[in-house]
Amino acid sequence: MSMKWISVLLLLQLSCYFSSGSCGKVLVWPTEYSHWINIKTILDELVQRGHEVTVLTSSASILVDPSKSSAIKYEVYPAHLLGNDFEDFFRKMLDILIYNIPRDTFWAYFSQMQEIFWEYSDCIQKFCKDVVLNRKLMTKLQESRFDVVLADTIGPCGELLAELLKIPLVYSLRFSPGYALEKHSGGLPFPPSYVPVILSELSDQMTFMERVKNMIYVLYFDFWFQAFNEKSWDRFYSEVLGRPTTLSELMGKAQIWLIRTYWDFEFPRPLLPNFEFVGGLHCKPAKPLPKVLWRFDGKKPDTLGPNTQLYKWIPQNDLLGHPKTKAFVTHGGTNGIYEAIHHGIPMVGIPLFADQPDNIAHMKAKGAAVSLDFHTMSSTDLLNALRMVINDTSYKENAMTLSRIHHDQPIKPLDRAVFWIKFVMRHKGAKHLRPASHDLTWFQYHSLDVIGFLLACVATAVFVTTQCCLFCYRKCAKRGKKEKKE
Amino acid sequence: MSMKWISVLLLLQLSCYFSSGSCGKVLVWPTEYSHWINIKTILDELVQRGHEVTVLTSSASILVDPSKSSAIKYEVYPAHLLGNDFEDFFRKMLDILIYNIPRDTFWAYFSQMQEIFWEYSDCIQKFCKDVVLNRKLMTKLQESRFDVVLADTIGPCGELLAELLKIPLVYSLRFSPGYALEKHSGGLPFPPSYVPVILSELSDQMTFMERVKNMIYVLYFDFWFQAFNEKSWDRFYSEVLGRPTTLSELMGKAQIWLIRTYWDFEFPRPLLPNFEFVGGLHCKPAKPLPKVLWRFDGKKPDTLGPNTQLYKWIPQNDLLGHPKTKAFVTHGGTNGIYEAIHHGIPMVGIPLFADQPDNIAHMKAKGAAVSLDFHTMSSTDLLNALRMVINDTSYKENAMTLSRIHHDQPIKPLDRAVFWIKFVMRHKGAKHLRPASHDLTWFQYHSLDVIGFLLACVATAVFVTTQCCLFCYRKCAKRGKKEKKE
Repeated sequence: MSMKWISVLLLLQLSCYFSSGSCGKVLVWPTEYSHWINIKTILDELVQRGHEVTVLTSSASILVDPSKSSAIKYEVYPAHLLGNDFEDFFRKMLDILIYNIPRDTFWAYFSQMQEIFWEYSDCIQKFCKDVVLNRKLMTKLQESRFDVVLADTIGPCGELLAELLKIPLVYSLRFSPGYALEKHSGGLPFPPSYVPVILSELSDQMTFMERVKNMIYVLYFDFWFQAFNEKSWDRFYSEVLGRPTTLSELMGKAQIWLIRTYWDFEFPRPLLPNFEFVGGLHCKPAKPLPKVLWRFDGKKPDTLGPNTQLYKWIPQNDLLGHPKTKAFVTHGGTNGIYEAIHHGIPMVGIPLFADQPDNIAHMKAKGAAVSLDFHTMSSTDLLNALRMVINDTSYKENAMTLSRIHHDQPIKPLDRAVFWIKFVMRHKGAKHLRPASHDLTWFQYHSLDVIGFLLACVATAVFVTTQCCLFCYRKCAKRGKKEKKE
Repeated sequence: MSMKWISVLLLLQLSCYFSSGSCGKVLVWPTEYSHWINIKTILDELVQRGHEVTVLTSSASILVDPSKSSAIKYEVYPAHLLGNDFEDFFRKMLDILIYNIPRDTFWAYFSQMQEIFWEYSDCIQKFCKDVVLNRKLMTKLQESRFDVVLADTIGPCGELLAELLKIPLVYSLRFSPGYALEKHSGGLPFPPSYVPVILSELSDQMTFMERVKNMIYVLYFDFWFQAFNEKSWDRFYSEVLGRPTTLSELMGKAQIWLIRTYWDFEFPRPLLPNFEFVGGLHCKPAKPLPKVLWRFDGKKPDTLGPNTQLYKWIPQNDLLGHPKTKAFVTHGGTNGIYEAIHHGIPMVGIPLFADQPDNIAHMKAKGAAVSLDFHTMSSTDLLNALRMVINDTSYKENAMTLSRIHHDQPIKPLDRAVFWIKFVMRHKGAKHLRPASHDLTWFQYHSLDVIGFLLACVATAVFVTTQCCLFCYRKCAKRGKKEKKE
């Protein structure tokens, strides 16, 4: 290594010491696919600033790949599940979610969704057991004296690790079904009158019947969340910790919740001081594109000309940032949508599953996208949709408005995410941001005991007053009769 | 002016152009005393960054003094109220608030407070009329093409000016009585179960009876707010605009609410994306102190030694930042408390009026202050309190914790305040941060219509099912009887 590089690395290490007092050790409980792509941006930045990042990953992991050279450390634990099994499970899950889920009724759709989610949750729990029941690994983690656990709520276990290692917890998350987790564990209020619940595909401008729909979704997911916890996690966590506890209780101990959206994408809604909206933290300026550009992952068609190259991966961000890019045909993943927002590109959305229909509904409500139904669309529909977002200038204007909002923040989302992780390491938590609602039961939280007490007081006062009046009236009436008799 | 200064000024102007696209014109509707001291920090910073700031001030103003040399412009309008009258009113008001307000019962105390507040509000309304009914002045303001109105909610009129001039509005505020304004105009949720209402002197850790007290305060201030609006402002605003409107409606149009506290001082509670907590934005590092230090505003005592100087004003911030300062005896104004937090100095609070008892209650709950009752305290009490905050190290430790929280923010509060004012000027508002709750009636907001509808549906379903069952039962019973007869 040349002296120049040694100096640069030394400088980075020093900058970490100077800016925060000391460098920290971060333990990461990751989730696969787009969730990993997003959180890795934060990890790279933490490493860049001289912090030590260790990712817990299993021998069955898919995208979380220790073989790729990086300054991130990987702690690979042996898993009961095989790599192929895990990938096969995802393929099966996607196959059902995209092609075979019943779309005719709310109940059929969501009970199938629930089944899939529970199966996924069982997989994650197996991985979790592979870690927390592995004594040697847990001793190693204890001895490593980490400063913080960074986890994604979609794959539980991070909160259990934080509890076992007695260190603070920071979440990075896009959403939980129906926002149930943010509400019940994080204490975040979601007034159903103007906050469309996630997966409902509603906007914040709701008609009366849409508000009824929103309320039904809220009630459904509240029950779902309760059932999910009880069925899958509460008993397991209680057994591991040796005391009665719940998933919700442990998740509620998170110091900071880094939400992977921002007000360019979300409809304005209440938040709490320990929730930071850091959407689009992975976005960056575009680099120049290669001359030939084509991505295809299947069998090479025989009719393909010799001047067309096939790639398994194209630089989507650079493509969206190219000055000649007019529109983005997307399945509506949050990462991709943020890249389009970053570069101000209008979208044609063909959502497939999870939050994708909701994401496209948001972009549609903000006038930056046209939505198509993957199951019913024709090639003409696609052509018309593309023509619309390209020729109707309002789509480009709205996309540019979102882009301006995205770029015009007091501090960049990635810097904000890193700041709060470092804050939690420096101060061993962020207790000053934790609302007291965590110490209340649900009926105390909704002031039902207080309202009941005040109503009882009013009822008592009314009763006593009426009785007194009646008593006086009878007394007077008696005296009147007596006087009459006399 | 030397070339050097011209270059510096040119640089400042250019920095404004480079950083934001263009320099803006800010119109300010100020409030007197500590409110002015706080907002002036923002104005100085805006001017420093090359923006043009014009303060609307009356010929009767007290602290808002155009004669003091500053780059801030002042538009002095003739007022019907005389300067002495206005100052006399404040003296009288303080005299009642500090010495003559009944403290025995809640109702007596708050109805007297309400009286005083209404008298103050009448004063402000006179000033407001002096501006909006002054045609020449209004034409001049129209022609000046301001980009934003910056106002303090405690003295209404800013929202009317913004409406008349058709420009966006930004608020700077400490609080409104019972947070009624932030709730009803700003749409901010204040769950009474864990958010102690301002003026209640409660913390976020409430017993059942304290939560009952909190709820009563909430109900009281909700009624108070309604009465205040209707009595004083709604008719006046409707007359000026020539259409039915309310103070609350116009205030609700504010794009950004800059709250003059932060989580070092507040108990964590829900916020909205267009609320920024910028407490302590006026704080700065301490400068060295003069050798002789004494502040006294009365008649010079005959016994005073020749080596003691009397000043009408001492540099409080520099004093609090002196390494030998052990404690701060304070009346508990927000500005002063923030200077103590900034420098990590424990406090002995002797609150007098307005938010001061609440401020000291906050500092007490956070373990950084001892509170004394101005009306009953003895010199021994003061001595004991001072000894406690100096000798019990927990007070210093807690004050230092608050100080660390205050200093450890991703971006300084003053920069954040200025950023959002500039944002509103650049984008002609901050519509993307405005919650849709503003378009709902109160019963829609609380989903009462939806809950009613769903209950009616359930009731109908139950009724129809019971009727069907009864019908079938009767049918069966009849057939049974018939068969028996046959």
